[in-house]
Amino acid sequence: MHDHPLLVPTVSDRAASGSSTALDRLALKRVQQSVASAPIRFALWDGYVVNGAAAQPVATIQFKNRIALLGWVWNPDLNFGESYMSGAVEIRGDLVQLLDAVYRALPPAQPRPWWSPDNANDVSAARDNVHHHYDLGNDFYRLWLDREMVYTCAFFPTPDASLEAAQVAKMARICHKLRLRPGERVLEVGCGWGSFALFMAREFGVSVRAFNVSAEQIAFARDRAAREGLTRAVEFVEDDYRNAVGVCDAFVSVGMLEHVGLPDYPTLGAVIGRTLARDGRGLLHFIGRDRPSPLNAWIRKRIFPGAYPPTLREVFDHIMEPTSLSVLDVENLRLHYARTLEHWRRRFEDESDRVAEMFDETFVRAWRLYLAGSQVAFNTGSMQLFQVLFAPSGSNTIPWTRDLP
Amino acid sequence: MHDHPLLVPTVSDRAASGSSTALDRLALKRVQQSVASAPIRFALWDGYVVNGAAAQPVATIQFKNRIALLGWVWNPDLNFGESYMSGAVEIRGDLVQLLDAVYRALPPAQPRPWWSPDNANDVSAARDNVHHHYDLGNDFYRLWLDREMVYTCAFFPTPDASLEAAQVAKMARICHKLRLRPGERVLEVGCGWGSFALFMAREFGVSVRAFNVSAEQIAFARDRAAREGLTRAVEFVEDDYRNAVGVCDAFVSVGMLEHVGLPDYPTLGAVIGRTLARDGRGLLHFIGRDRPSPLNAWIRKRIFPGAYPPTLREVFDHIMEPTSLSVLDVENLRLHYARTLEHWRRRFEDESDRVAEMFDETFVRAWRLYLAGSQVAFNTGSMQLFQVLFAPSGSNTIPWTRDLP
Repeated sequence: MHDHPLLVPTVSDRAASGSSTALDRLALKRVQQSVASAPIRFALWDGYVVNGAAAQPVATIQFKNRIALLGWVWNPDLNFGESYMSGAVEIRGDLVQLLDAVYRALPPAQPRPWWSPDNANDVSAARDNVHHHYDLGNDFYRLWLDREMVYTCAFFPTPDASLEAAQVAKMARICHKLRLRPGERVLEVGCGWGSFALFMAREFGVSVRAFNVSAEQIAFARDRAAREGLTRAVEFVEDDYRNAVGVCDAFVSVGMLEHVGLPDYPTLGAVIGRTLARDGRGLLHFIGRDRPSPLNAWIRKRIFPGAYPPTLREVFDHIMEPTSLSVLDVENLRLHYARTLEHWRRRFEDESDRVAEMFDETFVRAWRLYLAGSQVAFNTGSMQLFQVLFAPSGSNTIPWTRDLP
Repeated sequence: MHDHPLLVPTVSDRAASGSSTALDRLALKRVQQSVASAPIRFALWDGYVVNGAAAQPVATIQFKNRIALLGWVWNPDLNFGESYMSGAVEIRGDLVQLLDAVYRALPPAQPRPWWSPDNANDVSAARDNVHHHYDLGNDFYRLWLDREMVYTCAFFPTPDASLEAAQVAKMARICHKLRLRPGERVLEVGCGWGSFALFMAREFGVSVRAFNVSAEQIAFARDRAAREGLTRAVEFVEDDYRNAVGVCDAFVSVGMLEHVGLPDYPTLGAVIGRTLARDGRGLLHFIGRDRPSPLNAWIRKRIFPGAYPPTLREVFDHIMEPTSLSVLDVENLRLHYARTLEHWRRRFEDESDRVAEMFDETFVRAWRLYLAGSQVAFNTGSMQLFQVLFAPSGSNTIPWTRDLP
C-alpha cells in the first residue's frame, strides 16, 4: 500500500514566497469573491488578510505560498483539496463549518444534460479503482468503522442512535424492504467486508452469493464466515459482478453503483435482467445527485477514481427501463449519510495519531478533508443517498404495502 | 352533456354480413394468433369458431359483422374498444378474466425512447379534455364513487378494507408524507370534487387554494365547503393550474399529471418552482408506466383525450431536475389502483340500469370496458401508480425518516 497516491511527498509546495505582491493580493480577493457570501477570512503567507461576508468568520484559510494561491485561482475544484492535503493551505477554525459555508456560498450546479463521464470502468480499471480505496488495509478501516465494518450509509431510527445500532437498523431495513424469506437465494454485488451478506444469512435464513474484487475485503469476509459457521450459507466470490451467473430471488447492491460509471449501467442492467427470478425483488443503494454533475475533481483524483454519483433519472434511463424493471419504492437517506459521516469523522479524529503512524500526515489531512467534505455535501444536499426497490415489470409477488414490521 | 362522443349512435355497425367467407375465417385466425397464448374462443356472426390456447376458454369473443372483424385486423388497439362499445362485438364470459388473458398474451411494449406525444394541451384544449370526462354530471359519479367522491387511486391498509376507508387512508397518508402542520398554505392543482382540499383543511388545519378547470366539479366543491363551514380555509379556483401564483408550504397534485402531457411538464415544473417555499414539500400522485408507451388508442379517443401516463424517468427529466427538486420518496401503489377499480366497477355494474337511463347502452358498455380494462392494466403491471414526494434541493426541512405516525 506504500505506492498509494495519497502518500506522494509534497514538500516542494511548502517553499516560502517572500512578501505578497499586489498581484497576490488581487488573486486572494478573487478567491474570496468566488465564495463571496461565506463568513470566511482569507490570509496570505505574510499575514495579509481579506475578510468575508460576516463580522465573525467561522474559519481562516491561509495560503502558505504563491503556488498554492495560484492553484486555487486556476482550478479550485481540484486544488482546494490538493493544497489542504499537502499542507500548503492551513485552515484555522472548524473544518466542517468552513466547508458548509463554502458549499452554501457556491452557486448551484448548472444542469448538464449533455455531460457524460469519459471513464468506462472495464474489469481491470474497476479492480484498480477498488484497490486504490478499499485495500488501504483492514486495520485502517477497523480503527474508525463500526463493529460490523459497514462502510456505507447507516439508518438512524432517531438522530441520536449509535453508529453500531444504525448500521444494524440499515441492514434490517433493506432485508425487510426485500421481504427476504428463509431459503431464498440472494445475489449481492459489491459486498465490502461481508457484513451484510453474513447478516442476511444469519438473521433472515437466506443463502448468499456475494461478489467483490477487493482481495483484502474478500479474505476478511471469508474469515468471518468461517468463524461464524456460515460458509455454507454465504459464498464470497472474488470476482467482478459482471461475471455473476445463476438465478436469485433477491438482487442487492449497497454502495457499488457509484463506482460503476454511466457507460456500464446497461451491463449492470443486463446482469440484473439475467439473474433476477420473475418473482424476485431487487434493491440498489447508492450515492446520487438531484441534477447531473461530476464528482469533485480532487475526490476523483485522490479518493475515488472512476466514481460518479448518478441522478435517479440516469439510473432509470440506463438500468430500470431497458431491463423492464418496475420501481416499487425509492427512499432518500441523505441526512442519514451526513450523520454516518459525522460518526466516522469523529472516530477517525480520535485515532488520527495512529493513522499518521500507519501512513503519514498528508494521508491524515486528505482523509480529514474527504470525511468532512462528504458530511457537508450530504448535509447541504449537494449529494443524495437513494435506495431504489424494484421487481420485474408485471410481477405481483410484491408487498401489498411497504410498511415495515 | 348530450353531445358527448360516447353517445354517438353506431347502429350501422350492426348490419348482418351473411355467411362467413374463407377470407373472414383467415382474418379471424389472424386475430386469434395476435393473442395466441390466451385461453379465448373467437367466433364469427354465423357461428364459425376458432379456439385459443386452452381447452377451457375464459370467454368467447363474437364478431357480429364483417366491419367489426376487419376493424380488429386493421387497428386492434383502437377497434377492440370501438366494436365492444357499439355492440358489434359481443363478449360471453367474464370481461375482467378475458382482458387479463389478453394483456398477459400480448408481447411487452417495446421501449420507445424517441416516441413523443404530439398533443400539447394548451389551456383551451386542457379545458375541453377535462370537460369531456369530468363534466359527465356529478349525479353519474355519485352513483359509484365513494361517499367522499374521490376519483383517484385509494390506499387499502389491508386488501379487504372498504373503499370509503381506503380513500380516507389515502388522503391521510399523503398529508403525513407532506408533514402538514396547522396554519400552513397548501396549493392543490387538479382538485376534483374538492374532497382532498376539504380533508386537509378539516383534519390538518391548513389553508388550501385548489385549482380545477371543471365547472361542475368546482360548483360541487364550493357547495361542500359552504356546508362544512370551510369557505375561509379552502378557496376553490375555477382556473388552469398554470395561472397559480403566490407561495405555498406544500404543493400537491393527485391525478392531474396524467392529463398534463409531456410538452407541458416544464410549465408544471415552473409553477412548482415559483410557488413552493424554500422549506416546502410537494407530492405528485399520478398514473405512470415502467417504460414509455402511449395510452391505449381507444381510451384516448373515448375516455381520456390528451392523457399520457409517464415513466418516472420522464417526470424526473422534465420536472424534477430542471426545477432543482430533490426526490425524497417514491411509492408505487398499482395493486391499490387495481383494487380501487374493482370497487368502482362493481358499484358501476350495480347501477348500470340507472346509467343506461341517464345515457344509453353504448355508454354503459364503454364505461364497463374502461373500468375493467383499467383494473386489468394495473393488475398486470401495464400501468403503475406513483406517489413522488419532493422538496427544493438542499432544504433540510424534511422528515428524519419517512415512517408514518
